[in-house]
Amino acid sequence: MRGAEALLRTLVDGGVDVCFTNPGTSEMQFVSALDRVPGMRAVLTLFEGVATGAADGYARMAERPAATLLHLGPGLANGIANLHNARRAGVPLVNIVGEHAVTHMPFDAPLASDITGLARAVSAWVRTTAHVGAIAGDTAAAIAAARQHPGQIATLITPANVTWEECDGPAPTSPVTTLPRASDRAVTAAAEALRSGEGSMILLGEKALYGRALELAGKIAAASGARLSGTTAFARQERGAGRVAPARVPYSVAEAIRFLATTRRLILVGSTPPVGFFGYPGMPSLLIPPDAQVLTLTRPGEDHIEALEHLADLLGAKGAAPLQEAVVAPRPSGSLTLQVLAQTIAAAIPANAILTDETVSGSFPTWYASVGAQPHDWLPVTGGSIGNGMPLATGAAVAQPDRPVLCLEADGSAAYTLQALWTQAREGLNVTTVIYHNRAYRILELEYRATESGADPGPQAGQLMRLDNPTLDWVSLARGMGVPANRATTAEELYSSLSSAMREPGPHLIEAYIVESR
Amino acid sequence: MRGAEALLRTLVDGGVDVCFTNPGTSEMQFVSALDRVPGMRAVLTLFEGVATGAADGYARMAERPAATLLHLGPGLANGIANLHNARRAGVPLVNIVGEHAVTHMPFDAPLASDITGLARAVSAWVRTTAHVGAIAGDTAAAIAAARQHPGQIATLITPANVTWEECDGPAPTSPVTTLPRASDRAVTAAAEALRSGEGSMILLGEKALYGRALELAGKIAAASGARLSGTTAFARQERGAGRVAPARVPYSVAEAIRFLATTRRLILVGSTPPVGFFGYPGMPSLLIPPDAQVLTLTRPGEDHIEALEHLADLLGAKGAAPLQEAVVAPRPSGSLTLQVLAQTIAAAIPANAILTDETVSGSFPTWYASVGAQPHDWLPVTGGSIGNGMPLATGAAVAQPDRPVLCLEADGSAAYTLQALWTQAREGLNVTTVIYHNRAYRILELEYRATESGADPGPQAGQLMRLDNPTLDWVSLARGMGVPANRATTAEELYSSLSSAMREPGPHLIEAYIVESR
Repeated sequence: MRGAEALLRTLVDGGVDVCFTNPGTSEMQFVSALDRVPGMRAVLTLFEGVATGAADGYARMAERPAATLLHLGPGLANGIANLHNARRAGVPLVNIVGEHAVTHMPFDAPLASDITGLARAVSAWVRTTAHVGAIAGDTAAAIAAARQHPGQIATLITPANVTWEECDGPAPTSPVTTLPRASDRAVTAAAEALRSGEGSMILLGEKALYGRALELAGKIAAASGARLSGTTAFARQERGAGRVAPARVPYSVAEAIRFLATTRRLILVGSTPPVGFFGYPGMPSLLIPPDAQVLTLTRPGEDHIEALEHLADLLGAKGAAPLQEAVVAPRPSGSLTLQVLAQTIAAAIPANAILTDETVSGSFPTWYASVGAQPHDWLPVTGGSIGNGMPLATGAAVAQPDRPVLCLEADGSAAYTLQALWTQAREGLNVTTVIYHNRAYRILELEYRATESGADPGPQAGQLMRLDNPTLDWVSLARGMGVPANRATTAEELYSSLSSAMREPGPHLIEAYIVESR
Repeated sequence: MRGAEALLRTLVDGGVDVCFTNPGTSEMQFVSALDRVPGMRAVLTLFEGVATGAADGYARMAERPAATLLHLGPGLANGIANLHNARRAGVPLVNIVGEHAVTHMPFDAPLASDITGLARAVSAWVRTTAHVGAIAGDTAAAIAAARQHPGQIATLITPANVTWEECDGPAPTSPVTTLPRASDRAVTAAAEALRSGEGSMILLGEKALYGRALELAGKIAAASGARLSGTTAFARQERGAGRVAPARVPYSVAEAIRFLATTRRLILVGSTPPVGFFGYPGMPSLLIPPDAQVLTLTRPGEDHIEALEHLADLLGAKGAAPLQEAVVAPRPSGSLTLQVLAQTIAAAIPANAILTDETVSGSFPTWYASVGAQPHDWLPVTGGSIGNGMPLATGAAVAQPDRPVLCLEADGSAAYTLQALWTQAREGLNVTTVIYHNRAYRILELEYRATESGADPGPQAGQLMRLDNPTLDWVSLARGMGVPANRATTAEELYSSLSSAMREPGPHLIEAYIVESR
């Protein structure tokens, strides 16, 4: 069989059976092999940033890697911003990038570029297949590298000739390795810290924010009196009514410093000490008090559940964790201020929903409003790279087709990768997108004041933060991508639109028109 | 003054007075300085690929660099595909990328990434400003590097602290250097080759495809009997009625080999020997006959005009070059096959228009149909990286606001960077976009056959090449971006829409709905 077929069979045999792609000429053999190898679902995207972001969303929910298939250096480059987010999310991802045939490389053809150099910036593992005999083994190695805990980006670069030449067949893939354990010493040190009085905080990141790990962390916090918080950004959190409800380190550096000010001992569970998204003149980067003690129970990629079970035993934390109560607030009405919008979303979240959040300046208001909403998963932007949310929702919906996906987007962020809507329509995915439409990069106005001692932007600076000339018409944009859409200007309209959109199969978009509140 | 102000003043003093941007927090000081430094036009884009592609289009027409301002590694990554095209176009471009403050770097904040590694893949010059005292000098060095002939991408990475700390002021920029001359030996060798009988071809690239260089090449070809051709891809060509009309090396490898088959001597003027865009099983990469002699009159970045003047003298090429006659074909009518569409475009091109072409499978039909159209400039995709055309048109219109810009786009390509439309609306640019709407990646069907011995794609492969489920509605998409739009299904409708769109100021989009011709 040809190299491309061996590659594809190795992927499918290794449990990688979804591929988000926008292929080109150098990937035609892979495309052709799809008709000879059953079991691979190839999902077409109109832009590579959608493919990589969808692979991230898929992996966050499926807990196994999807593949991408990207066209040469420029195709990879278009996918890098969301690979950056995927890297920060710690997800497994097999990133396949086509390359010119080796005989063609010396001629510096127009599309030639330094693919390896680009890939290294976002990949834990990069390999270019040297000859067709190596392609199946390289694919198996890429899958193994992607599955390294907590999950990594493995980039396999495939020169066109190794996909069209003949080889022996697929290669076996190694089984998923067990999670590394935390040391007993780390557990006893954490227990000791938690017994030593007030001022302890347990900080959860990575896979400690859902399932059994979150439950155990809730018990331990309750038994020890420690505060319990999640990191600012994380891959996935289970939250809402009936779940353990950790706090969250605020995005704003000033607020985060206040939030952490009383912390004497920070116990890390799959997390690292909180640092600011950005540095600001005269502000610290590390947000905990300088004299706070930092203890690592588990690093990202270690077995949080095992360590937390052990810690709970040591502390005698047998009791049930306090769980978030359902908050049934009166359904909001009237014009959509940001606060009303957030409350309406919270009221409309259906049970078992998956939320992706890229509302930026709308993010924390929505987070706080939805603490007691129906139980749901929350998927934020992990690496701060904009254009993540809509692709993330697309991949999450592919991974879990039976759950409603609610994609919360700021208008500025949504404009980065709006092509995701087309893939949602094509695949009939159950994604309802809400555009927080405030006609501005509101976050930049806040950031301007943070970097300019509280001053307001002048006319030139201000015009770079406004999206009102012209105003994006998201109903029109969604329809252009084949997604039904409508506009909501009141809480009543938004609630009613959300309810019906989430009842109907397939994607929908609602433009929530926020009234100016300044 | 602060570092950002010194940077900005150095740019403006150095003749770089347009900046295409999507800034973030780490670039806020640059944004703030716009209100203190007059003379910089900051053009906001919704996506960084629009910014870099617009800077390319600007430089192709203005023949001087624009700046970009991009947000950290992910912002740069989003701009890389069009920086790749700009690199292949040989344009000058000052690519400014924000970075975290040096004190913030050790903390591996969420947005931290290897900016230098990403930048090297597309830049001839990369520098990170080490301290605020260096920022003005580094900016001057970046401008000088960008202006190296033929034009280069210079990436200046500016840690946030060097933009907010105090420095002495702007730095002087060096004057534009003169073009390097071709050697006398190169000129006499070319003259000798052109005197030695049949089978000579003069191949024009870079800045030899417009102005005095093109005229001289026409005279020399006429006097010597040599064939005259341009390369497949180039930054800019002047063509149409009244202009010297070189042929063009076809994109298809099989056609290009036939086109070049009789070539015994190839004389390069700002070009390199033609190679295939891709390698194919059993096909050569180099497209000229293996025994053809290759002579370099001028390399890209050398003085083509001076060398061609000298060559014309040696050959006694005093006569006027034959010029393209106006071709006034009967205006087409009826349904829009690709051929009818191409003829209608040709008939509607206004005098002195700038055309950008990213119609891919529609490109050569449009090229051939428009040989005798009104005189115009033709700007193709240089590096094969898709998503170039609409940003290119945006930048060309900023550079030459008084000329009509006609942006010819395939539907698949247009979907990459459709955000360019919003910037066109915001800036009131005279760009008329025509979408060649065939609901397919038609080029991939052709490429599939080229790599698969003529076989048609199977069902799985075929579905990755069709854009008809759902069909993109380009009228809706354009209106969503604030650009007036309409649909044309016949030649009459298209001609009439084109004529009125180009009469009215500001942008317009026409979806030309191509009937299936298979």
